[in-house]
Amino acid sequence: MTDVEFYAARMERAVRSAVQEGLAGLVVAPGPDLVWLCGYEPHVTERLTALLLAPGRKPQLIVPQLERPDAEKAPGAGSLAITGWADGDDPYTAAAKLLELQGRYGISDNTWALHLLALQRAAPGATYGALSEVLPMLRAVKDAYEVERLAAAGAAADAAYEAVVELRFAGRREVDVAADLARLLRENGHEQVDFTIVGSGPNGASPHHDSGERVIEDGDMVVMDFGGLREGYGSDTTRTVHVGQPTAEERKVHDVVREAQQAAFEAVRPGVACQEIDRAARQVIRRAGFGEYFIHRTGHGIGVTTHEPPYMVEGEHLPLVPGMCFSIEPGIYLPGRFGVRIEDIVVCTEGGGRRLNNTERELRVVE
Amino acid sequence: MTDVEFYAARMERAVRSAVQEGLAGLVVAPGPDLVWLCGYEPHVTERLTALLLAPGRKPQLIVPQLERPDAEKAPGAGSLAITGWADGDDPYTAAAKLLELQGRYGISDNTWALHLLALQRAAPGATYGALSEVLPMLRAVKDAYEVERLAAAGAAADAAYEAVVELRFAGRREVDVAADLARLLRENGHEQVDFTIVGSGPNGASPHHDSGERVIEDGDMVVMDFGGLREGYGSDTTRTVHVGQPTAEERKVHDVVREAQQAAFEAVRPGVACQEIDRAARQVIRRAGFGEYFIHRTGHGIGVTTHEPPYMVEGEHLPLVPGMCFSIEPGIYLPGRFGVRIEDIVVCTEGGGRRLNNTERELRVVE
Repeated sequence: MTDVEFYAARMERAVRSAVQEGLAGLVVAPGPDLVWLCGYEPHVTERLTALLLAPGRKPQLIVPQLERPDAEKAPGAGSLAITGWADGDDPYTAAAKLLELQGRYGISDNTWALHLLALQRAAPGATYGALSEVLPMLRAVKDAYEVERLAAAGAAADAAYEAVVELRFAGRREVDVAADLARLLRENGHEQVDFTIVGSGPNGASPHHDSGERVIEDGDMVVMDFGGLREGYGSDTTRTVHVGQPTAEERKVHDVVREAQQAAFEAVRPGVACQEIDRAARQVIRRAGFGEYFIHRTGHGIGVTTHEPPYMVEGEHLPLVPGMCFSIEPGIYLPGRFGVRIEDIVVCTEGGGRRLNNTERELRVVE
Repeated sequence: MTDVEFYAARMERAVRSAVQEGLAGLVVAPGPDLVWLCGYEPHVTERLTALLLAPGRKPQLIVPQLERPDAEKAPGAGSLAITGWADGDDPYTAAAKLLELQGRYGISDNTWALHLLALQRAAPGATYGALSEVLPMLRAVKDAYEVERLAAAGAAADAAYEAVVELRFAGRREVDVAADLARLLRENGHEQVDFTIVGSGPNGASPHHDSGERVIEDGDMVVMDFGGLREGYGSDTTRTVHVGQPTAEERKVHDVVREAQQAAFEAVRPGVACQEIDRAARQVIRRAGFGEYFIHRTGHGIGVTTHEPPYMVEGEHLPLVPGMCFSIEPGIYLPGRFGVRIEDIVVCTEGGGRRLNNTERELRVVE
């Protein structure tokens, strides 16, 4: 299959899905949807770039004239009708002419309000739903090719972890360990590093802590949450290590999180609602008496981004489908003291979950 | 003035401007508006973070609960009422309660459609205008502090240019020179590099060319367009150099662009419409017979981003105001052959334009 055929098939599938949901088509903005559909990844700016997909018509890509040469080089460009607009033109009126008067469209979640408001003005009869809400399965269900890309990214992240735990922690700053993680991800094939969270001691109790100047000490728990893109597909791994011998309480909290992660993993099978994955993890933590300290959802999807639908969260009734790939990452956060989180990427298969991360989940002692 | 007072003053000014324009308030998303207004710079995700500004009320910041500790550390946090929402909660209903039923709001240009559509659903009577359209002057007019920050970024970019032209061009790839430019920007105090375009020979004829594998040769024109953030404020500079001695035609084209850039610069004074800056440059290029090869607008604003309103483009009637900072960057692009662009950042003062870049604009010969 050529690149052009590969992306044409994705665009055709997207149109079919849209029609099934009663949509007139899709409006796709620069970002993960556009990359996934046609391989084109322009800078996101105030100049409108939009891919318009509708049944019975060639996909239409509207681009700023000066970016047209780049658009024409995109791997999926061969099946697109590309229209350039010049500075000073009104691209929204041109786009509106391609929309059905009273049509309902799916639009990329990350489309700028600037563009959406201008489209709403130029085509007042058309209405929009966020793509992740109106077509939640579109990018969420990965094919075999995508699962293997994610597995390769996971294996690379595993290798980065195995290398980082051999380094010294005590006496170095969080930002130093974070820089090591970024370097190791790159050495293992990542072209993009999205985050390298290193939360030591009390900083580990803030789940989205930015790595800082704190010097890691003997006796610290250290949460490391790191990921990025390798050949266009994401990794996202968390392990919590201990500098020197942990206390009984630290071991206990880590055990509870590990059991919660395992319970959620074992709950994965086709047809189960996403919220059940969250509940499975939460129940273990609640029964152990730490329910109030698990302050975020259990997971999120992953694909051409490190962070996307579906979400493993109470209230998400979307059923798991073979090919869905997502994180399972329960945590316990004891304010002012320490935190523990364990995260693997898991794919839903016909037979249940398959982990795409495979390093040990036992509490690792580092130096 | 403390940080808290500094940002509180900006937020108060924003509210006053909104009221003057008949707006009920502002909805501010993560990105440059939020950084500018309160110094908070979270990751942009599907989880709603929004600053709501309205007259007679403390600024309200809605954040995901797990990011609250970071939000509380923002330099402007001291004058905010921060509300956290937990995964599984509906933050849009909470936000809608803070909006006037039939109010019209300015909303950050880069707010995700996902969030705007959910707000439109949660508060169906409220309407929105893109912030850059309803309050175009808010961030566009810089105070003396901001102008000096931009001047420092420009001086750093100048230093990077002076260093790069001493390096060898012939025989190296575009990406190698681009990497040198990125390194030099960092060495000169940039914490973020946004772009390092190196377009050699025929690649220079594509204004937004991504630096590639092409090996630069003797006889090439080379367009270098580079910039990023230094202490939170942007640089954006373009110079076109020649490897070895240029031909008479190459000199001629470069002269025309330089004269166009100078003419646009001399047109800068308070009260002149932005489009006049574009016209001043375009007229020089048109008269020289190259009108069809100047295929983009003449400039864009710069501030806490490298690329923002106001735009120097036909149809933009916004008048220049002292304190506006923007690029002047005309170019001529001869398809398949070469391109020339010259760009400086300029601030509008009471007495006319002042350049924030000061390296030579004569055609520089490199090796």
